[in-house]
Amino acid sequence: MGSTSDLPVMEAAAKFFEQMEIPFEINALSAHRTPKEVEEFAVNAHKRGIKVIIAGAGMAAHLPGVIAAMTPLPVIGVPIKSSLEGMDAALAMIQMPPGIPVATVAINGALNAAVLALQIMSVGDAELQQKVIGYKESLKDKIVKANQELKKLEYRYKV
Amino acid sequence: MGSTSDLPVMEAAAKFFEQMEIPFEINALSAHRTPKEVEEFAVNAHKRGIKVIIAGAGMAAHLPGVIAAMTPLPVIGVPIKSSLEGMDAALAMIQMPPGIPVATVAINGALNAAVLALQIMSVGDAELQQKVIGYKESLKDKIVKANQELKKLEYRYKV
Amino acid sequence: MGSTSDLPVMEAAAKFFEQMEIPFEINALSAHRTPKEVEEFAVNAHKRGIKVIIAGAGMAAHLPGVIAAMTPLPVIGVPIKSSLEGMDAALAMIQMPPGIPVATVAINGALNAAVLALQIMSVGDAELQQKVIGYKESLKDKIVKANQELKKLEYRYKV
Amino acid sequence: MGSTSDLPVMEAAAKFFEQMEIPFEINALSAHRTPKEVEEFAVNAHKRGIKVIIAGAGMAAHLPGVIAAMTPLPVIGVPIKSSLEGMDAALAMIQMPPGIPVATVAINGALNAAVLALQIMSVGDAELQQKVIGYKESLKDKIVKANQELKKLEYRYKV
Amino acid sequence: MGSTSDLPVMEAAAKFFEQMEIPFEINALSAHRTPKEVEEFAVNAHKRGIKVIIAGAGMAAHLPGVIAAMTPLPVIGVPIKSSLEGMDAALAMIQMPPGIPVATVAINGALNAAVLALQIMSVGDAELQQKVIGYKESLKDKIVKANQELKKLEYRYKV
Amino acid sequence: MGSTSDLPVMEAAAKFFEQMEIPFEINALSAHRTPKEVEEFAVNAHKRGIKVIIAGAGMAAHLPGVIAAMTPLPVIGVPIKSSLEGMDAALAMIQMPPGIPVATVAINGALNAAVLALQIMSVGDAELQQKVIGYKESLKDKIVKANQELKKLEYRYKV
Amino acid sequence: MGSTSDLPVMEAAAKFFEQMEIPFEINALSAHRTPKEVEEFAVNAHKRGIKVIIAGAGMAAHLPGVIAAMTPLPVIGVPIKSSLEGMDAALAMIQMPPGIPVATVAINGALNAAVLALQIMSVGDAELQQKVIGYKESLKDKIVKANQELKKLEYRYKV
Amino acid sequence: MGSTSDLPVMEAAAKFFEQMEIPFEINALSAHRTPKEVEEFAVNAHKRGIKVIIAGAGMAAHLPGVIAAMTPLPVIGVPIKSSLEGMDAALAMIQMPPGIPVATVAINGALNAAVLALQIMSVGDAELQQKVIGYKESLKDKIVKANQELKKLEYRYKV
Repeated sequence: MGSTSDLPVMEAAAKFFEQMEIPFEINALSAHRTPKEVEEFAVNAHKRGIKVIIAGAGMAAHLPGVIAAMTPLPVIGVPIKSSLEGMDAALAMIQMPPGIPVATVAINGALNAAVLALQIMSVGDAELQQKVIGYKESLKDKIVKANQELKKLEYRYKV
Repeated sequence: MGSTSDLPVMEAAAKFFEQMEIPFEINALSAHRTPKEVEEFAVNAHKRGIKVIIAGAGMAAHLPGVIAAMTPLPVIGVPIKSSLEGMDAALAMIQMPPGIPVATVAINGALNAAVLALQIMSVGDAELQQKVIGYKESLKDKIVKANQELKKLEYRYKV
Repeated sequence: MGSTSDLPVMEAAAKFFEQMEIPFEINALSAHRTPKEVEEFAVNAHKRGIKVIIAGAGMAAHLPGVIAAMTPLPVIGVPIKSSLEGMDAALAMIQMPPGIPVATVAINGALNAAVLALQIMSVGDAELQQKVIGYKESLKDKIVKANQELKKLEYRYKV
Repeated sequence: MGSTSDLPVMEAAAKFFEQMEIPFEINALSAHRTPKEVEEFAVNAHKRGIKVIIAGAGMAAHLPGVIAAMTPLPVIGVPIKSSLEGMDAALAMIQMPPGIPVATVAINGALNAAVLALQIMSVGDAELQQKVIGYKESLKDKIVKANQELKKLEYRYKV
Repeated sequence: MGSTSDLPVMEAAAKFFEQMEIPFEINALSAHRTPKEVEEFAVNAHKRGIKVIIAGAGMAAHLPGVIAAMTPLPVIGVPIKSSLEGMDAALAMIQMPPGIPVATVAINGALNAAVLALQIMSVGDAELQQKVIGYKESLKDKIVKANQELKKLEYRYKV
Repeated sequence: MGSTSDLPVMEAAAKFFEQMEIPFEINALSAHRTPKEVEEFAVNAHKRGIKVIIAGAGMAAHLPGVIAAMTPLPVIGVPIKSSLEGMDAALAMIQMPPGIPVATVAINGALNAAVLALQIMSVGDAELQQKVIGYKESLKDKIVKANQELKKLEYRYKV
Repeated sequence: MGSTSDLPVMEAAAKFFEQMEIPFEINALSAHRTPKEVEEFAVNAHKRGIKVIIAGAGMAAHLPGVIAAMTPLPVIGVPIKSSLEGMDAALAMIQMPPGIPVATVAINGALNAAVLALQIMSVGDAELQQKVIGYKESLKDKIVKANQELKKLEYRYKV
Repeated sequence: MGSTSDLPVMEAAAKFFEQMEIPFEINALSAHRTPKEVEEFAVNAHKRGIKVIIAGAGMAAHLPGVIAAMTPLPVIGVPIKSSLEGMDAALAMIQMPPGIPVATVAINGALNAAVLALQIMSVGDAELQQKVIGYKESLKDKIVKANQELKKLEYRYKV
């Protein structure tokens, strides 16, 4: 991420990895303030055994694209909302030029970035794929609970 | 893809896989017209050995999201421009709810979807990763050629 | 609706049906978290005697479209504002592909969804149509009251 | 519709009704140029046995809303694209105030307006509902044909 | 205006007329809830000696357009922000079809509507035109005061 | 207008004045290229007997606002579409600051600007007001003709 | 700037110049309320030794463009957010016509305007250029600190 | 620029420098395809005597921002329209983070970029400033010619 002010959004990813027991690291890197450090990180990530990179950024969000230019790893972009409802960041991620994709998820969607990262890592890894399947199954619980709450609503004409 | 009218956009992905020698299949599926077939495809894809799914769709582009709801595999969405400059399709892909990501690439960006798919498959596969590295290297050629053309431009004050 | 967090918006519909004495049911269903349940609901709704379906959803709001794909009943979509001022949800509903309409109403417009549902049910039902006519007549009261308040405003040059 | 220039868009609705053998009438009416005629039409439509009204309009598309204000019938709006990609017309239809809904479909989506009208008329009419079910079934054919065409595509690595 | 909830925005116009000593009336009218009353108002306004009509409305803001369709008087529209940052209301006013203009001012710009109304009434009325000139002159005071405040700012390098 | 490239849009206003027999003048003026000439025009217009000013401009369309700052006359702005679907020009006109309105009409809506100008000039001029009334009446003809054409359409199920 | 209400945004520029020890002046000027004063300022600025002009404005933000029309100096525009998320002001600055540029920076980006001004002044001034280089170097500190904070985060699976 | 496909837009800058007799160089560089070359260019530009950098780019236009991160020189960004009307590129340039400005001009506004570059170079260079003044003076000619053409328009009521 670009600064600790992105942490309230990005920590949803950290919590997901924690819950799924997936090792991860967190770095502050800025495409514009620390270009050298970004380069060093991006060029070496796959050599250090990193499998997927998640980059969160706001405004003219160049960070995931700049990293994607220098790594063979899949790069997931989280557009962070700080102006223009986050549309500036979203467009700066999806609209990458031919050959250098950034896998963009929802505005402030750090959780989805982490789920996507797990799905990517689970390609060809049956054990991790079971975790994905289990996680997706667990999402139903929220709906089950919602239905229980909705049942309690009292209206005369409610069936 | 949802119909053969999407083929002029989506064939860039097919050509990339052909060039990279990556086996692939192409299907027409519609979240709204053939929901049963989509379900059958999505539920079974990972059992058939498929590793990544690319779904192109336009307008209220539900196809990648509907597939993502029923598979543990990573799903890449290609927003296809058929109205509103493609923004309707792009938002219908990036703005997925928590837990069910769609990895969205550029509007009409089928090539980037394929490159991203290759990057995903190359996680933990050194040979495929070499292909990614080689491909990214090859992108420089376009710039080298562009510089050669620009050198030929004749202006008196051009250095 | 997709979760109980949509209830503050959607209860305007419940209250309208209560006031109009129209039987209704409320369910939590998610196109992405409980696709099976959505399918079961959508495929059977008309067999159970349901006449109109109202689906509220936010972000990449696939729920009404996914239901519409599997039912012959008219489906009304309520775009719920949770990001991008609700434009993402609105586009994901109006921009449905040829053959599978979603009748979209205002962002957060659950009341209008309920009024539209009543209008639909009143087609060919003279008694219900009287309810619609009575309801529309009652809307004038708000304007009458507003005029009474405006009359009390004191300005020297107000006629 | 507001003028014969809307006919190329709106005739998709006429063709659908023709195909489904549903009686219909076509009128040119303008909320701004012939307000009296609009009023006369809207106030009397349900008395003449009309069941659903479809109104297509572009730009600041007031026609469906103005009609909706004066009829108990459900009014379907078709935003016609003539400027701003049709967003002006779409917003002028979905964003109706509380109590007066317009059932809005896709930009230039006259076919969907007609399908929705049929769905509305089929509420409580088993025969018409069979027509809806039959029509929706027929939509699969397009996908089947698309798959046949896609099968013919020749790529070395296509499975 | 459509309801008393618009009063906090629209009263800026009333205050301006009060300050300029221009007689005015205030009405609550709704294009959708009281179409008859709107018609009566619009058809008769110029016969009653009214010179300019200001209509404030939000969302799918049809009120000024509906009035403009039925009066020879100039109609000024004030888009009121209640959703989508007021863009829905602004487009529903500027994008009027050929022949039926609405003179649209800023979102929530009731003061500007009143100034424009005074400018319109002052066409061919030398006395009123002096009021306009005097008012515009008075606008400079705000800038003069701003400069006085800015002079007090203390910075070492401020000249 | 800012250049002769705006003439294809703006001549609709000239034609309307010609048809209505209203004297008018046409000038090319640029807020950015000829600020002195704009100032001279704006400061003197009301002294020369001009009653209303119509200013067409595209992109960051400052011309009507700059004129409005220096004249007591009502200024009508025509946003000309040359980029961003004309939204840049429309916003640069409606969003004027408090005290300096520009009466904005539709994108490329030069005809509406002319109609509005006539409406403004007809305030307190019974003869001109008759012209407005006659013109608005004439707008119905287009709808009458449209209905005649629509009657000729042959469908089996058309009533 | 156009008023003291812009000061909370614009003072970031003043603080930067103070920190960099660059002499500056602050003025309140309005393109619409004090056009004469704007003209006097713009026409004379380069004669008084001013090197760069920064103009902050909101809504239909004409100030930087009007100044740019009358000075040979580079003019930097700061779009100030007061409506429409600041997009109206941003478009009114970037979309200047050919020949009269405004160097536009981020919405509310007064700091960036000041940094750009320093960069402009440092062209051909080695000492100022050292200040720019020093300033850019200092931006890394924020990232270094962020990394220190991120290191403290405790997760079991964080590497 | 990123590729020779940008040349039709960017050559307006080259032609302006040619006309003004300002030495310049043209390079193809891509933030994503040749990050190393971009770094080398950006880090060394000011050492080679370059005074201003103009970077044109489309879509998620990172090029000017990436260069700006690594040079003390002022960087001018030209958003090139290739999708979404150029808004993606414009936002990717103006919305730069604090400390790293990109001076953004109009969409496809390469001429304005060149004029701005000349204005920047003329700070503290009286001779170049005369060129700027002369150029701005010459812009009036287009308006003079436009007025001559408009005079030839024949209308009966044109004054």
